[in-house]
Amino acid sequence: MLKPLGDRVVIELVQQEEKTSSGIVLPDSAKEKPQEGKVVAVGSGRVTENNQKVALEVEEGNIVIYSKFAGTEVKYEGKEYLILRESDILAIVG
Amino acid sequence: MLKPLGDRVVIELVQQEEKTSSGIVLPDSAKEKPQEGKVVAVGSGRVTENNQKVALEVEEGNIVIYSKFAGTEVKYEGKEYLILRESDILAIVG
Amino acid sequence: MLKPLGDRVVIELVQQEEKTSSGIVLPDSAKEKPQEGKVVAVGSGRVTENNQKVALEVEEGNIVIYSKFAGTEVKYEGKEYLILRESDILAIVG
Amino acid sequence: MLKPLGDRVVIELVQQEEKTSSGIVLPDSAKEKPQEGKVVAVGSGRVTENNQKVALEVEEGNIVIYSKFAGTEVKYEGKEYLILRESDILAIVG
Amino acid sequence: MLKPLGDRVVIELVQQEEKTSSGIVLPDSAKEKPQEGKVVAVGSGRVTENNQKVALEVEEGNIVIYSKFAGTEVKYEGKEYLILRESDILAIVG
Amino acid sequence: MLKPLGDRVVIELVQQEEKTSSGIVLPDSAKEKPQEGKVVAVGSGRVTENNQKVALEVEEGNIVIYSKFAGTEVKYEGKEYLILRESDILAIVG
Amino acid sequence: MLKPLGDRVVIELVQQEEKTSSGIVLPDSAKEKPQEGKVVAVGSGRVTENNQKVALEVEEGNIVIYSKFAGTEVKYEGKEYLILRESDILAIVG
Repeated sequence: MLKPLGDRVVIELVQQEEKTSSGIVLPDSAKEKPQEGKVVAVGSGRVTENNQKVALEVEEGNIVIYSKFAGTEVKYEGKEYLILRESDILAIVG
Repeated sequence: MLKPLGDRVVIELVQQEEKTSSGIVLPDSAKEKPQEGKVVAVGSGRVTENNQKVALEVEEGNIVIYSKFAGTEVKYEGKEYLILRESDILAIVG
Repeated sequence: MLKPLGDRVVIELVQQEEKTSSGIVLPDSAKEKPQEGKVVAVGSGRVTENNQKVALEVEEGNIVIYSKFAGTEVKYEGKEYLILRESDILAIVG
Repeated sequence: MLKPLGDRVVIELVQQEEKTSSGIVLPDSAKEKPQEGKVVAVGSGRVTENNQKVALEVEEGNIVIYSKFAGTEVKYEGKEYLILRESDILAIVG
Repeated sequence: MLKPLGDRVVIELVQQEEKTSSGIVLPDSAKEKPQEGKVVAVGSGRVTENNQKVALEVEEGNIVIYSKFAGTEVKYEGKEYLILRESDILAIVG
Repeated sequence: MLKPLGDRVVIELVQQEEKTSSGIVLPDSAKEKPQEGKVVAVGSGRVTENNQKVALEVEEGNIVIYSKFAGTEVKYEGKEYLILRESDILAIVG
Repeated sequence: MLKPLGDRVVIELVQQEEKTSSGIVLPDSAKEKPQEGKVVAVGSGRVTENNQKVALEVEEGNIVIYSKFAGTEVKYEGKEYLILRESDILAIVG
């Protein structure tokens, strides 16, 4: 198991097809394109300057879209994951 | 449905004509030009350093103008959207 | 109507003459030169880290001078406006 | 009248002579050199993150020295002024 | 003994094999790749702006993955260690 | 008199000899070298984000060493001074 | 005596041998290498934004390792010292 720290999230990569499972089609433009994935683990949250934890908005099982260049790739027990901060997640899908 | 996180907003793109539906005409200059769109979903707000959520000012249905280079384009169920932070929205129109 | 967000202000551009209506003459130097305009709408203010709104100092009708390179130009119903943050306004005139 | 915003100050420029009226002589070196001027208007102060105004230390009539490259020049009713932030003022003279 | 300061952590380097002991295999891509190590000492935590210590999430004995370019290498009594901030640790493994 | 603002300090320059009066000899290396001077005036302190003044640690008469490239030179009534922020002072000597 | 300000620390340089007195051997790599020294004076601590002093973790007599490029060298009464911020200290040794 991977237990992300702070406001980090572990994402299971979704293979990019022309049309993804949840119906998102990434447009053909020069702009930064988001990616889609499934949240498999969430951290316990960042700590504010008055020393309180901020729980994450995303939960295990959420399908999310996130910035293409965000996070760090990890292979764990044969599967590919991405670990990124919740702030790099744009939206929950569905 | 796209549920944006934090202080993010989902915008439905408005096709740029010489004069847009709400009457904004973008001037012909070298300055950064704003874009116009319709808010279709808003996040629950950013969390301050004393751990309180700041509700967004914009609401679903608002026509807004925003910075041209802000946000990330997404195609979802055949429609084009832009996901950006509320701080990239300049004003509500109308 | 344009309703600016946060600490933003909508300025009606004043045509630059050699001597403007309120008596400001911009000097001929290499330094950054301010511009003059009339406030036509103000936002409800920025939100501090302890979640309180900070009302703006400027009000509708104020003649203000502001940084030359600040803000974003918008044409709305035939008139030119500038949307900028209050922090880009230097002073109220008169 | 020019009413500066926030922590800004309006300075009446003092003509640089070899020795200024208050006795400051600017040295001949490659270092950044300060300028001297008279405060003619002060803002009501910046707002902290717990939403309180911080009154300025300088007052109308103070002779101050300030960073050479700070602020924005304005001509108003025939006189030259400089608008800068109080943090660009180094010291009160005399 | 090495007693790290603040939010720092001392990591015992795990030799990189094709498949590491905890089952992480680092993928072959141009992206930044994480490293794996064992926590052998933790600091007492950073101090927030309201003067409270924030205890670390990781503990001695945790296997963690961390950013490849983070931290400073130290050799102490014949062993190699890495000292880094907890914020450079991505996740706890297992 | 020069009354420095905020967390600023006025320093009377001490002529650099090979060995200064308080016994500091500056080493001959490529690293940034500190300077020595005498505090002749101190500001009333910076204001924190909860609107309290932080009194300075240094006092009039202290001999201090400070970063070589810090501050602004001023000549006042025939003497050379340096105005810098207390944070540019490294230590009090003696 | 050198009395460091704020969160600064005065370090007595330890001559770099292949193996230092406390047993640290610096590895031969392209990464930033830490240095070892003895704390001879500590400041009274930085002041937080709610105006409280944060006492330092290190004490006089501690052997510490610190970033190679941190701090400012000073020669005082014939001895070489380094003045740096506590945040540049990685760990206490022993």
